[in-house]
Amino acid sequence: MTKSFGYAAQSKTSELEPFSFERREVGADDVLIDVEYCGICHSDIHQVRDEWGGSIYPMVPGHEIVGRVAEVGANVTKVKVGDYAGVGCMVDSCGECTYCKSDIEQFCEKGAALTYNSTYMDRVTPTYGGYSTNIVVPESFTLKINDSENLAAVAPLLCAGITTYSPIRRFGVKEGSKVGIVGLGGLGHMGVKFAVAMGADVTVFSTSPSKEEDAKKLGAHHFVVSKDPEQMKAQASQFDFILDTVSASHDLNAYLQCLKYNGAMVLVGIPEKPAEVLAPLLVMQQRNLTGSAIGGIAETQEMLDFCAEKGIVSDIELIGVDYLKEAYERTVKADVRYRFVIDIATLKAKEAQN
Amino acid sequence: MTKSFGYAAQSKTSELEPFSFERREVGADDVLIDVEYCGICHSDIHQVRDEWGGSIYPMVPGHEIVGRVAEVGANVTKVKVGDYAGVGCMVDSCGECTYCKSDIEQFCEKGAALTYNSTYMDRVTPTYGGYSTNIVVPESFTLKINDSENLAAVAPLLCAGITTYSPIRRFGVKEGSKVGIVGLGGLGHMGVKFAVAMGADVTVFSTSPSKEEDAKKLGAHHFVVSKDPEQMKAQASQFDFILDTVSASHDLNAYLQCLKYNGAMVLVGIPEKPAEVLAPLLVMQQRNLTGSAIGGIAETQEMLDFCAEKGIVSDIELIGVDYLKEAYERTVKADVRYRFVIDIATLKAKEAQN
Repeated sequence: MTKSFGYAAQSKTSELEPFSFERREVGADDVLIDVEYCGICHSDIHQVRDEWGGSIYPMVPGHEIVGRVAEVGANVTKVKVGDYAGVGCMVDSCGECTYCKSDIEQFCEKGAALTYNSTYMDRVTPTYGGYSTNIVVPESFTLKINDSENLAAVAPLLCAGITTYSPIRRFGVKEGSKVGIVGLGGLGHMGVKFAVAMGADVTVFSTSPSKEEDAKKLGAHHFVVSKDPEQMKAQASQFDFILDTVSASHDLNAYLQCLKYNGAMVLVGIPEKPAEVLAPLLVMQQRNLTGSAIGGIAETQEMLDFCAEKGIVSDIELIGVDYLKEAYERTVKADVRYRFVIDIATLKAKEAQN
Repeated sequence: MTKSFGYAAQSKTSELEPFSFERREVGADDVLIDVEYCGICHSDIHQVRDEWGGSIYPMVPGHEIVGRVAEVGANVTKVKVGDYAGVGCMVDSCGECTYCKSDIEQFCEKGAALTYNSTYMDRVTPTYGGYSTNIVVPESFTLKINDSENLAAVAPLLCAGITTYSPIRRFGVKEGSKVGIVGLGGLGHMGVKFAVAMGADVTVFSTSPSKEEDAKKLGAHHFVVSKDPEQMKAQASQFDFILDTVSASHDLNAYLQCLKYNGAMVLVGIPEKPAEVLAPLLVMQQRNLTGSAIGGIAETQEMLDFCAEKGIVSDIELIGVDYLKEAYERTVKADVRYRFVIDIATLKAKEAQN
């Protein structure tokens, strides 16, 4: 077995605390990654607190993982010891269903093995995430990292990055596309960067007028205060594509009316309550409402390569493990620009003390 | 001016009654059609009764019009006197906006001139529909009818036909596609015929178990009673495409869950109340919810040609003008298989009596 050390929640009411555990031995198709950085995704908090139900404890969260390859199995060719590598939201899938064969492992018919709060494909062994010193992953779920200079800021690409890149690609955003990004948080700020990099004319919609300066710094061309009915009215039928990154329940119709004929709005957040949709907004301009969930491994690699080529990383605040509690509180309040990333060196120091 | 005789509503509470009126002279680009048959669309009733607001009286309804060309202007080349021709939901549009230039005149930026309960592009002259002895239409909004043997049954293609054909084409329904049709009325029965003609495996969803026999006769391969939760559950993630033809408010999520990854559900009815949509159903399988409204003139012609080639017409009940009141009552109760069509010869007989 492979010794590992992480931070885990023992129940939905407990804080994250030091946790020694074992990972499987490095098999012939496996890669052992020595974790260097792990991003904090809002979904970590939902799951630690069992806000979505069905949480598995002890839980070591974290699915925005980057580090260096420490060991590889006999069959591994994708990476070698010393390479930079990453792990996103999944660590395995059945590999045999239509979805897996179509490179959309996130929709695996048997249910992909998620990186934490899940089980491996044996449906028994729990998975532990990246708030830990190392991780063992099959080569097929290992991502190559080509941008080693900004490693900490690369970490959030593994979830926030692919979640926004995938729908932007799916709807063919390109030079001249008129794109709206709803919400300027961890997901939204990546959406802005990708859409701008693809040559689109980008508008950020936010309830907070104070975010205009930031939006423009990130490259957005326009800013609309979504609470202002006059400003919203002026956007009617203007957009080819709108990425809605807001998880709180909100009025989708206000944004649907902003789409042009045949335009598409993609939800990447999951509001708690059902959304009320006005059918005429869909019927009269053949507008499309859809959703998107992360992305497959091949597309995640494509995204990482695109980011390395274009110099795109996440805007982050680097923290030590001692700051986890405050980081969670601030993430819940959306008081972060735009992603907390844990420096796993601070975790290794804890391990040495233990 | 061109003398015409029709049946009109004088107010939202009055019955349809004989009405003499004039249409414009046949201009250089116009076609005069001697109307032979006109279908009754449920939207005729909504508009006659001002249920959508803004109705213009006197109102001569009818936008499923077929007949013979009686006169053509000097510039007309598409049809000649004696040809069979049709008119659908529109009689003009600006011709200059992006939408008109893209053959989707129904979304004309200035608002297309609808066949009745609307105004011509001068925004003053009212339009009168096909419950009348004749109609004057620009050549560009005249459809050629190649199936003269079933003329009465061709009429509903001009609205019910194109409304269902257009989304089926847009989503590339083809041999092997798994298609669901929700509701078996005027629109639904055309949806079944088109999807079957395109080689799809077709399932009809209906609240009425009694419709199974009819669905199968129309060519559907499967039938699901949508009120039966067990039957609905068995359809989870099975469909590439679902056409929802139901106008009454109903649970969209029950059908959204039937879509496969990246499948699409298209609304062609407009329920009165906002629809409650569960975001996870869209996000987790990247399902698409959209709408569709009739179709452009070029696509309507394509549909008519497709129907002539495949021998597709609507199932109809042919009636005389004296039956209009009962036909409206029965249409409201969905007691028609599947479209009433008025034999305009009975209207011409009335005109002779007047």
